Amino acid sequence: MAAGDVVLGENQYGKAECRLVRIDREVARHRITDLTVTSQLRGDFEACHTDGDNSQVVATDTQKNTLYAFARDGVGAPEELLLRLAEHFTTGFPWVVGGRWEAQQHSWDRVEVDGAPHDHSFVRTGRETRTALVQRDGDEVFVLAGLRDLTVLKSTGSEFHGFPRDRYTTLPETDDRILATDVTAWWRYAELPDGPGGFDATYAAVRDLLLATFAEVHSLALQQTIFAMGKAVLDAFPGIAEVRLSCPNNHHFLVDLEPFGLDNPGEVFFAADRPYGLIQATVQREGEARKPRAWATVAGFA
Amino acid sequence: MAAGDVVLGENQYGKAECRLVRIDREVARHRITDLTVTSQLRGDFEACHTDGDNSQVVATDTQKNTLYAFARDGVGAPEELLLRLAEHFTTGFPWVVGGRWEAQQHSWDRVEVDGAPHDHSFVRTGRETRTALVQRDGDEVFVLAGLRDLTVLKSTGSEFHGFPRDRYTTLPETDDRILATDVTAWWRYAELPDGPGGFDATYAAVRDLLLATFAEVHSLALQQTIFAMGKAVLDAFPGIAEVRLSCPNNHHFLVDLEPFGLDNPGEVFFAADRPYGLIQATVQREGEARKPRAWATVAGFA
Amino acid sequence: MAAGDVVLGENQYGKAECRLVRIDREVARHRITDLTVTSQLRGDFEACHTDGDNSQVVATDTQKNTLYAFARDGVGAPEELLLRLAEHFTTGFPWVVGGRWEAQQHSWDRVEVDGAPHDHSFVRTGRETRTALVQRDGDEVFVLAGLRDLTVLKSTGSEFHGFPRDRYTTLPETDDRILATDVTAWWRYAELPDGPGGFDATYAAVRDLLLATFAEVHSLALQQTIFAMGKAVLDAFPGIAEVRLSCPNNHHFLVDLEPFGLDNPGEVFFAADRPYGLIQATVQREGEARKPRAWATVAGFA
Amino acid sequence: MAAGDVVLGENQYGKAECRLVRIDREVARHRITDLTVTSQLRGDFEACHTDGDNSQVVATDTQKNTLYAFARDGVGAPEELLLRLAEHFTTGFPWVVGGRWEAQQHSWDRVEVDGAPHDHSFVRTGRETRTALVQRDGDEVFVLAGLRDLTVLKSTGSEFHGFPRDRYTTLPETDDRILATDVTAWWRYAELPDGPGGFDATYAAVRDLLLATFAEVHSLALQQTIFAMGKAVLDAFPGIAEVRLSCPNNHHFLVDLEPFGLDNPGEVFFAADRPYGLIQATVQREGEARKPRAWATVAGFA
Repeated sequence: MAAGDVVLGENQYGKAECRLVRIDREVARHRITDLTVTSQLRGDFEACHTDGDNSQVVATDTQKNTLYAFARDGVGAPEELLLRLAEHFTTGFPWVVGGRWEAQQHSWDRVEVDGAPHDHSFVRTGRETRTALVQRDGDEVFVLAGLRDLTVLKSTGSEFHGFPRDRYTTLPETDDRILATDVTAWWRYAELPDGPGGFDATYAAVRDLLLATFAEVHSLALQQTIFAMGKAVLDAFPGIAEVRLSCPNNHHFLVDLEPFGLDNPGEVFFAADRPYGLIQATVQREGEARKPRAWATVAGFA
Repeated sequence: MAAGDVVLGENQYGKAECRLVRIDREVARHRITDLTVTSQLRGDFEACHTDGDNSQVVATDTQKNTLYAFARDGVGAPEELLLRLAEHFTTGFPWVVGGRWEAQQHSWDRVEVDGAPHDHSFVRTGRETRTALVQRDGDEVFVLAGLRDLTVLKSTGSEFHGFPRDRYTTLPETDDRILATDVTAWWRYAELPDGPGGFDATYAAVRDLLLATFAEVHSLALQQTIFAMGKAVLDAFPGIAEVRLSCPNNHHFLVDLEPFGLDNPGEVFFAADRPYGLIQATVQREGEARKPRAWATVAGFA
Repeated sequence: MAAGDVVLGENQYGKAECRLVRIDREVARHRITDLTVTSQLRGDFEACHTDGDNSQVVATDTQKNTLYAFARDGVGAPEELLLRLAEHFTTGFPWVVGGRWEAQQHSWDRVEVDGAPHDHSFVRTGRETRTALVQRDGDEVFVLAGLRDLTVLKSTGSEFHGFPRDRYTTLPETDDRILATDVTAWWRYAELPDGPGGFDATYAAVRDLLLATFAEVHSLALQQTIFAMGKAVLDAFPGIAEVRLSCPNNHHFLVDLEPFGLDNPGEVFFAADRPYGLIQATVQREGEARKPRAWATVAGFA
Repeated sequence: MAAGDVVLGENQYGKAECRLVRIDREVARHRITDLTVTSQLRGDFEACHTDGDNSQVVATDTQKNTLYAFARDGVGAPEELLLRLAEHFTTGFPWVVGGRWEAQQHSWDRVEVDGAPHDHSFVRTGRETRTALVQRDGDEVFVLAGLRDLTVLKSTGSEFHGFPRDRYTTLPETDDRILATDVTAWWRYAELPDGPGGFDATYAAVRDLLLATFAEVHSLALQQTIFAMGKAVLDAFPGIAEVRLSCPNNHHFLVDLEPFGLDNPGEVFFAADRPYGLIQATVQREGEARKPRAWATVAGFA
């Protein structure tokens, strides 16, 4: 066990899960932006770790205050807000050379009253949560966008067979099963969207494409479905360099009704909690440079 | 401390949170029903408690099996399924005189593909969870329907002032604040819906009415909003005898940006987690008989 | 469907889940009290509900402030703090005639350093959460104490057989199974503890007795175990009038290893999440007056 | 946007969160091992992703079965079980070249009856969760051990001052505050423990050392405390190559009681939920080779 002195390795710190709600109310028809934001800085913080010297420690409270102050100027897409924060901290403090800024966006619909959307009353849309992650590493800036908890289910159009059988294999083959998952996806922008709608429009289009691909692929394995979902995104969006998908296989077991004298032609299922399958894959472009540092703080797959 | 022998008081037992997914697939356009169901029985189970004599204990596993077997015939509205279970258990076992059967319904939308809803691919609607509770108590049957986690927010149209001030009062008065809550509601049917759509149509109409009333009431207190929501339901649905609402006041605090040289005209808020206000009220009809046993297992307010 | 005017029924409101940490530091050996407290008032709040008239609405913010101010004088047992709050609100505001005050207590151990407990460093004990509930209803005061999430398991000494079999029964009988549950218990004090240690000592003694009884009873049904646990408490504590227990049956299924050529003599289990059994019972003293209002806000069993 | 064909990048799949309870019952004094285990494989699974060809896909169900079958022979330390699974899958299937196997261990104490620990009745210890992660990457095997949710608090002995102040800084300096966190730690074994007790003894010793160091360090910043905790582990355990710590700063705000005419000399605190500080650091040995692939699936810090 060689081993020299004990030293500080990679580190980062900041304020996590700042709950920011921004109301745009210049006009009677209000708009709402609802974010949970985390800011973390990287740079020369060694003296703090080794000696408790805080002279370079931008307080996490200051990071939080900065977020709320910046929101006064408007928020825009979460990626835009995070990029502004990244620029501020890495240019404002010489010893801050990078960091990560993450947001989750919670979406709201307008309440309908007599068939018309209300001006200032909203109901939380509970579907997926939109996510965004900006990492700055010296001059390099990485922008990831994504979503999580997009729960989907196909009641047919899914098979699973042809897998190897060994001593421990008892699973029967099937040519018709429920396929259900909660999609977590991250995509990396090699070029930032600059068309009409920018990040917001791209986000909505990617999400809809993920959904449509899930629906349309006749699935022989969840892996196949996932790869097709990622490929569809790369095919449609040249500015996106790679997509990472992490998808549980939420098992729905056909209930055996035979003991009760009943058949069960794919109609009655028990939805299990745990364990679940877990399928994770990156879909990328051949020959395109990898950017491992873009993914350093996203729990991934070696 | 008088105190005679120790005896068994009120009791019930059963199987909780059975995850049932039912696919109707007679036609190519599948339908999905997704429920979490709890069944609990009441009756003469004293010998089990005092002596471990299980001869009258309908196994919780049997209760679960019965649920899945009954789903083979179709589910319908959750209230209908629960009523069938209640009838089965209270007529099938002489010593079972009552029980409670509860369901949560998780809703799904169809995935849109090229603008058209897909036949067999669904995406979980994350809004509110629909709830249903049937209690049977000898010959009496109580049917409650409800919802929870209906998260709503008004960005204006809410005031709070005129409250008493004592030594411990520091809250400033306000004539413009965000009002936000997660509605939990239960309503009791004095007459079961029998029009077109039945329970499902009534559920959707009550939910929409709760939303619209929240939107339209200019609020001087969350209590006032809640009462108006309950009253709107009773006014519109003669078959509903009473409504119970339990609503947190999800505080959104205006961030003080003055230290940063900025104003904040009702635009930037911090959404707090805890503590939160908690407002609970029953709205009922004058002179209508109370049914306390209908509510015995709903945590309430004395 | 008779139906007169729509009127306000039972209601209560207040501040929920105030996180209070109290450090006693008069001496170098600090003590910590960690509570989550909810305060809710009942009384004449009709004008607020019907007209938004807040002149009798003690703000929920004021209720929170009062809690923190009272903590300045020391906390003591959670029941004592809640009784002080109840007294304050019901005597200080003529129209406040009752309410409910609830606390959860989170316990901490001292960190051990070189075998000695540290003066001011603590580690959260993750076992059960202690609970307390005071309800005041005019002149009547009800004090409930309890616990939740006390997770226990017996690896043998549990059987389940002799239950009735019908068309839907498939469960095999067993004379050796794992019995596991998360105990939720509430007990009602007919006389408040006044011996040395007061509420704290009684709490610890009841918890230990629940644990020991779970361990010692050879179980023929979870119902039998629960009844024995409640009876043990009533037998040992004459000041406790009744005990309510709510206990899931956390199923541990023996894994079938036969397909792999292995036996499984009660050694390898799958611990299931859902569904689970749910067994709930009240144990009380024959002839002792019932106090249903004491339990009005504890979700119970009819 | 160059961009060649869309191809599969890094990927892994398996069965997540298998709940395994193992009872050792050869003697009357039972022992319990309670694990949540995840198994994921890496290798040549391209045909499955691109064509739905499952001929090399070891079913996730098979991975689960293998776990339960292996548990028949006894479990031992979680790291040992994971190493056996890694060996099995990477040697048994030529196209499986690596994977990750992870476990969480839930600990149980014996119930005390009349002062003596019971033979077969257990109560869940709710403190920290022990974690283990084995990754195999061809011939390289990485073993990480750790813990999470070790919640600690110091009621004094913590200061925070001397940090830079900018336009957005409002935080006052303090020389006495509560310091509280939930420790998540991972350490990498460069040499596997082979003394008496092996992994289990090392785990217990590391946990106790983390606790004692937290208690004993007079803290000028949470960063300093964390670094000291990691350094203490490296100094004491030559077989451990690096330690990663991720620690929220669980803010406890002194309540301002002045409006109520009261002082508050560090006694009454509000424990906040969000936002929270988040401090993350790696502590390592100078000159020791880094092993980034060991950490690829642990969400980290670039």
